[in-house]
Parts: sequence; structure tokens; C-alpha cells
Amino acid sequence: MLLQDLLDQPQVSWMKPGAKDGDIVLSSRIRLARNLADIPFPGRAEAGQLQQTADQIHQSVSALAASDRHEYLFIPLEQLTPLDRLILVEKHITSPNHVQESKGRALLVRDDSMVSIMVNEEDHLRVQCMMPGANLSEAFALADRVDDVLEAEHDYAYSERLGYLTSCPTNIGTGLRASAMLHLPVLVLTKQIQRVVNAATQLGLAVRGIYGEGTEAVGNIFQISNQLTLGYSEAEIIENLTSVVQQVVDQERAARSALMAESRSLLADRIWRAYGILRFARSISGQEALAMLSEVRLGIDLKIIENLPAEIFNELLVATRPNFLQKRSGGENDPAARDRYRAELIREKLSAFEIKQP
Amino acid sequence: MLLQDLLDQPQVSWMKPGAKDGDIVLSSRIRLARNLADIPFPGRAEAGQLQQTADQIHQSVSALAASDRHEYLFIPLEQLTPLDRLILVEKHITSPNHVQESKGRALLVRDDSMVSIMVNEEDHLRVQCMMPGANLSEAFALADRVDDVLEAEHDYAYSERLGYLTSCPTNIGTGLRASAMLHLPVLVLTKQIQRVVNAATQLGLAVRGIYGEGTEAVGNIFQISNQLTLGYSEAEIIENLTSVVQQVVDQERAARSALMAESRSLLADRIWRAYGILRFARSISGQEALAMLSEVRLGIDLKIIENLPAEIFNELLVATRPNFLQKRSGGENDPAARDRYRAELIREKLSAFEIKQP
Repeated sequence: MLLQDLLDQPQVSWMKPGAKDGDIVLSSRIRLARNLADIPFPGRAEAGQLQQTADQIHQSVSALAASDRHEYLFIPLEQLTPLDRLILVEKHITSPNHVQESKGRALLVRDDSMVSIMVNEEDHLRVQCMMPGANLSEAFALADRVDDVLEAEHDYAYSERLGYLTSCPTNIGTGLRASAMLHLPVLVLTKQIQRVVNAATQLGLAVRGIYGEGTEAVGNIFQISNQLTLGYSEAEIIENLTSVVQQVVDQERAARSALMAESRSLLADRIWRAYGILRFARSISGQEALAMLSEVRLGIDLKIIENLPAEIFNELLVATRPNFLQKRSGGENDPAARDRYRAELIREKLSAFEIKQP
Repeated sequence: MLLQDLLDQPQVSWMKPGAKDGDIVLSSRIRLARNLADIPFPGRAEAGQLQQTADQIHQSVSALAASDRHEYLFIPLEQLTPLDRLILVEKHITSPNHVQESKGRALLVRDDSMVSIMVNEEDHLRVQCMMPGANLSEAFALADRVDDVLEAEHDYAYSERLGYLTSCPTNIGTGLRASAMLHLPVLVLTKQIQRVVNAATQLGLAVRGIYGEGTEAVGNIFQISNQLTLGYSEAEIIENLTSVVQQVVDQERAARSALMAESRSLLADRIWRAYGILRFARSISGQEALAMLSEVRLGIDLKIIENLPAEIFNELLVATRPNFLQKRSGGENDPAARDRYRAELIREKLSAFEIKQP
């Protein structure tokens, strides 16, 4: 894998079509927080110690590659421009927190970008696995295998009583954060979403926007994740979240069926207008683009729009983000010019598919 | 000419392209109010007298046909369904006032619908000539010829001191109402229109919406007409109105140039979004359709949208009116169904032209 491809291609493999409940669950993500036993946590480590951690993890590349016949790319964040770092955040390959500093920070990415290991984020290691659709168990199994390879090579900070030790007490124990990214346009449209969010919160889950903590649910995309990492086994956490995700999927699906039965033509009008705007607008903000793309994706799912692949939505989710756009347009960072370039990119993508209009 | 064509075709010949200032002046209209000397004005006439007027005018068909080698169709309004009468209003062939009653009322229409003579509207005769573009003099010349033919056959109510006598004193004298229909999207957009309206009013002109008195200027279309019929010669009235229309055209053109220079890309965005909505919406109200069509027409005029003929705007102005739609959809008069049918018709028309997107 070339670093350039990782930065330039909007597609990542967790966007692949055909996954379980892939019409509603865009992706499933597992993140394990781990720390090396003999080095202070990143928040307290000196520059040399951060570098030492990065060097140690760098040495695990061959063991990781041998374990699953994939290629792994080790990227010290200092080798990336600030813009490129933000693009990796937009592709969900790393976190906003991770790229705030670059010194001693690094990223290990598997060639299909399903596995990425953040080095010296809040913890020494954050092992992340991302898969398309509702696939938390499979994503966990993958993360667990990667974790086993790393654990065989490194001495982890671990307490028999508490489990894995982490910088922030909310991650202690399993160090596991599982989350699913859901597209819930009809629960939003029919104003049922607040009830769903409240119910999930009562079950100890967190509901956030597309880029995690503190971000808004633009484009009707929500992340549901576990809050507790201590006192439950990994299997229990995955099972609990999987069950809630399934319930939310069922509710969105029921809301879609009801809406199609009651207001099909109103819905079709909304969806086709959104398509028309995306297909012809000369300037579009990131927020409006996501809102319109959400409508179009719903149209594809409901077979109101035919001949347009669902993946175009996931791809444009990334491709229309500000930093990704800025890079593609050759560094243009005037917001008005970026809105024009975003519209151009969307028109180009959409016009590649001839649409069948009923 | 078949009556059916007159009712079914949205095109009328005053929509033809290539006329003078046709990008801004959609049409020029002349209306002459005349009354027969020996019969009470329609407002005071009995049923038999209305019929007598209609019969007398009916007899002029051959003289009219002989004068200009056109075919003239005499249509007693009683032979039309109420819906068909409203369609003739939407096509500007007759007036809302004329079709409120049908008994004894009739319409004489030339095969190209450039000449229509309302029988027993407010006056016994309303001779109307409509031409594409800024063509008031030519339209007046045509109305004058038609009037001469009629005057040779009938005895008009005429006073040496006052001129032609009419039901309403505001029409006495020349009996002439001249008007031009202007498309002024950029004077509206840049909020200069009120100033233009005020100036025209001070010059003794009236500015109204697309369907005359009491109608709103939807679709950025305005009718400018003379108010005074007495104390000025026909030539003076035409000259005055022509000069004001020319000034308004110049102002709209200047506003368009300034806007293109200052905000071309914002304008292009507005225009293409309107096109996108018209091209894909599944339901659209008459008012929204006119607003969006106005944007698209501006886009055609400014060569922002290419490969789309300007006449499509004029044609859709008529074709998307409620009564015309109701007839075309086979009598559907549920407003929601009509909005859907309107959207379908617009999609059908627009998708017939392959659009070049820059």
C-alpha cells in the first residue's frame, strides 16, 4: 500500500457493499486501548519516551504482517502534513485527538485500512478495526487477533484486579470501545430519534455524531457506542451493543416501511429534489451536502432512485469533507472556493451514473 | 384552426422566439374597447340584446378572414366547459372578467391566436392583439386593421368630443390599453423593482402581475400598461409605453450585467439548483414552478444554461397553470395530484433536451 493512495482515495474497505444490514449500519468499529508496562502514559511521557514507544511498535510490523498476510504501513505523524493528518481523521483511520500532536505519534495501518493502530494517542496503543455493516463480533475478533500479536511482542500495563490499565479511567478494564455508525434518516424525519437516543443512553450506551464525541449528527448519521469498559466481559459488551443496534435498525426499518406506505410520493419528492440539487448545484456547504446525500442514500435504499450504487454515499461522505477536498483541489482553502469544488466533485460522481426516472 | 388545438396546445404564437428584446419582453399586447351604437352596454343589456351583439359580430367573420387571409374561429362561451374557458384565460386569449358569464358571450380568435375579439366582456367588443417581444407598434397596427374591418361593418358608439364610448369611463377616448409583459428576475433579486414600479406609476402607467389587475407578480413577470385613454392619441400612448418599456429593459439588462460581473458563481448556483429541482421534483406548486422557471429562463438568457430553448419557459408558463393541467390530466382537480402532474410535465419537457453542464 502506498501512503499516497491512503490519502488520495476516498474509498476505504469498510465502505464495501453487501454487508449485514448495510442499508442502515454503515460500519462497525472496535477500539482497544492498551499501554506498555514500562513507559509512562503518553500524557506524562517525555519526547524520548514517546519515541521509544513508537520505535517498539514499529518493530511489530513484521509480526503483524506474518500473522495475516497483509501489508502494514508504519507512518510517523511527523512525516505527514497537517492537512494529510486531518484527511486520515476524515477517513476515520485515526482520531481528532491523535493528530493534535505529531511528535512521537505514529500510525500503523493495514493495507485494506480495516486495521489501524494509533501510537501515542491518549494511550500508547489504540487498536482500531472497522468493518462494513453490522459486524461488531467479526470486527472484535479481528481486533483481538491483532491485539494477541502485539501482546506477544510487548509487555502490557495490566492489573489482575482491574484488567488493562489506561490513561483515562473510563477505559480501564477491557479497554474496549465498540461502536456502530448508523444512517437513521427516517427516525430523524419522523422525530422518533430522541426517543431512540434516550433509550440507548439508559442502557449505558452513548449516541454521538459522525466524528465521535462533541460532533453533531449531520447527514442523519449516528454513532452508538458502549460507555462502560469495566465490570463486563468483551463478549457481553459486544452482545449488548449488537442487540441495541439491531433494535435501532428494526425501528428505522419499520419507520421506513410506514413512511413508504403513508407518504411515498412526498418522500419521493424530497429525495428527488435532493438528488436534483446535488446533481446541478454549483456551490454546496459540507453540511448541506451531507443532508442531501443522506436523502439520496435513503432513496437508493428504498429503490426510489435506481441505478445509483449505495457506496457512492459512503464515498462522498469522505470525499466532501473539508480537508479531503482541500487536498484534492490542490490546497484551496478559501471556503467559498471549496464549496464550489465540493459541488463539482459531487456533480462529477453523480453524473457518471445514468439515472432511471420513474 | 380547431378549437381543440386552441385548448390543448400550450404554445401560442406570441411566444415565438427571436422577437425584439425577447429575452426580457415576453409579449406586447394591444386591447381596443368598442361598443355598438344601438345596443345597451353589456352591463345593462338583456339576454336578447347580448345575443344580438354576438350574432352581429359573428357575421363579421368572413370580412375579417378576407382582410388578412387568416381563419377566424367564432366560439360562443356557452359551447365551452367552465374548465376550457379558464384555459383560454391562462393562455391570455381572453380575460378572467369575460369568462365569468357565458350567456351571450363569445370569442373570435384568429388561427394564430394573435388576434382575439372578446364579445360582451365589459364592452361589446374587446379587440386584442398579442405579439412576441417588444412590438407595441406592430401589435397596434394589427389591432387597428382589425378594428377598421369591424368599424366598416358596424356602427360604433362614438362621440366627436370624447371619442369611443365605453362602459367604464377609464376606457373612454381611444379605448386603448397597451401593455407589455416583462420578465424582470434580476431587478427583483437586487430589490430594484420597487423603484422601477414607482417610476412607471409616476409616468401614468400601471404595473401588475402576469394575469392583470389584482394578480401578483409571480415568476418575476410584470405587466406594464397605460392608465390613461383620454387626452392622448393612440400614437402618443404607444410611444410613451414603448419608451418606458425600453428603459425598464435597459435597467434589467444593466442589472444582469452587474450581477454577472459581481456574483456569477452565486447566480449560476441559484440557477442550476432551480433547474435541478424542476428536472427531478415529484411534486411542485404552480407558484414554485413559476419561480424556478424564472430562474431557469434567466439562466438561458445569460447563457449559463445552454442547449435549452428559451421558449420552453413561455410554454411552461401556460402549461403549468392549474386549469390547463387539470384538462391535460383528464380532469384531475385534487391539488396534490395536480402538483404531481405538474412536476411530471415539467420533467418530461426538460428531459427532452440534453443539457451541457460546464
